[in-house]
Amino acid sequence: MRLAELSARSGVSTATIKYYLREGLLHPGQRITATQAEYDEEHVRRLRLVRALIQVGRIPVNSAREVLAALQEEGLGRTRRLGTAVWALPHGPAPDDADPATASARRTADELLESLGWRPGHLPPNAPAAPPYEMLVTAITTLARLGYPCTRADLEPYAHAMEQIAVDDLDMVERYAPEEQVEAAVALTVLYEPVLLSLRRLAQAHESYHRFEGD
Amino acid sequence: MRLAELSARSGVSTATIKYYLREGLLHPGQRITATQAEYDEEHVRRLRLVRALIQVGRIPVNSAREVLAALQEEGLGRTRRLGTAVWALPHGPAPDDADPATASARRTADELLESLGWRPGHLPPNAPAAPPYEMLVTAITTLARLGYPCTRADLEPYAHAMEQIAVDDLDMVERYAPEEQVEAAVALTVLYEPVLLSLRRLAQAHESYHRFEGD
Repeated sequence: MRLAELSARSGVSTATIKYYLREGLLHPGQRITATQAEYDEEHVRRLRLVRALIQVGRIPVNSAREVLAALQEEGLGRTRRLGTAVWALPHGPAPDDADPATASARRTADELLESLGWRPGHLPPNAPAAPPYEMLVTAITTLARLGYPCTRADLEPYAHAMEQIAVDDLDMVERYAPEEQVEAAVALTVLYEPVLLSLRRLAQAHESYHRFEGD
Repeated sequence: MRLAELSARSGVSTATIKYYLREGLLHPGQRITATQAEYDEEHVRRLRLVRALIQVGRIPVNSAREVLAALQEEGLGRTRRLGTAVWALPHGPAPDDADPATASARRTADELLESLGWRPGHLPPNAPAAPPYEMLVTAITTLARLGYPCTRADLEPYAHAMEQIAVDDLDMVERYAPEEQVEAAVALTVLYEPVLLSLRRLAQAHESYHRFEGD
C-alpha cells in the first residue's frame, strides 16, 4: 500500500508517519519510484505500537527507539525478546544507593521475589539490576522513608494479584501469531496500565462503599 | 515543635516547608511569636502526604491542593471523603466524545461495572462521570482505536484482580486510626501505583520464562 493508504489504515497522519520514518521509529517502505514507497501489514502493526508507546505511554522518542530495536533481535527467544523490549520502557527514577533506606528496600525486594519463586535473574538484560526490579526498590524506599507500610508481608498480596494479571497478560499475548507476540506484549503492557489503575480506584470506591456504607 | 524540628522529623527542608505553607498545601502552625510558629503531629502527617503527591505522584500543585481540600470536608462520611480525595487526583486525558469509538467504550465500561456489581454511581462527586470511570473509558477507546483486545470479557479478569487489590488496600487503610484513614488512603493509592506496575512487569518476566523456557 502507498503512504496515503497506510495513513488511512492506521489513523496516523501522513506528516506524523514521515516524522516516525525520519526518527527511525518506522522502517522504510520498499522504494518503487524516486518519490514513492510501498508499505505492508508490518508497517500498520508497527505504527500502532509506536502510537501506543508515544501517544499513550508518553514514552520519549529515544526510549521508544530502544524498545523497537529490542523487537528486532531475532536471535533471541521469546522470553528474552519480551524482557528486552518491556525492560527498555521507562521505569522512573533509579534507587538512590546513597540513601541507607535503599539497602533495606533491596533486602525486602529480594526476600519478596525469593518467597514468590520469581527468578528475574534468569532474564536479561543486566540482571539482577532489571529495570522493574529497580523500580520496585525505588517505590519501597519511598514508602519506607515516608513511614508507610512496606514489609515483605505488606507487599505479598499485591505480588500475588500481579501474578494472576501476568497470566491474563500472556494469555492475551498468545492469541497473536508468534511473530506478533513480542510487539503485542509491549503494547498491551503499556495500554493496560491506565486500565489497571482506573479499575483499582473504582474497586476502592466500591469496597469503601461496602465497608463504610453506614458512615 | 518548631520549624527546624518539623523539617528534621519529616525529612523535608525548611525552605520546601515554607513553600508548601505559602502555597496552602500545609496549614499554618500556631503562631507563638511574630516570627515563630508551633507545629504538631498533623503537620508531620500532612507533609508526608504532600511529598507523596508532589514528589512521587508528580501531581501538579493545583491538583494536590484540591486533594487536600477534600480531606478537610469533615461533614462527609469516610466513603465520600475517600472518594472525593482520590477522585481529585489527576486521571489523564478525558474521553473524546467526538470520537465514535468513545460511545462504544462507554457501553463496554458500563457493562463491565454492571456485571461486577460495582456502583460508582453511588459515589460522589459528579457520578456517573467519576474521574476513574472517565479514565477507564479513555483507555478502552485507545485500545479499540489501535485494534487491541478490549471487550468486556477481556477486561473482566483485570477487574477481578483489582477487586482483590482494593480489599488489600482498604485492609491497610483500616490499620490507621479513623481520623488518619482518608489521608492514608490517598497516599497509599499513589505510592503503591509504581509497586503494582513494577510487580506486573516482573511477574510477566516470570510467567514468560515459565511458558517459553524452551525457546
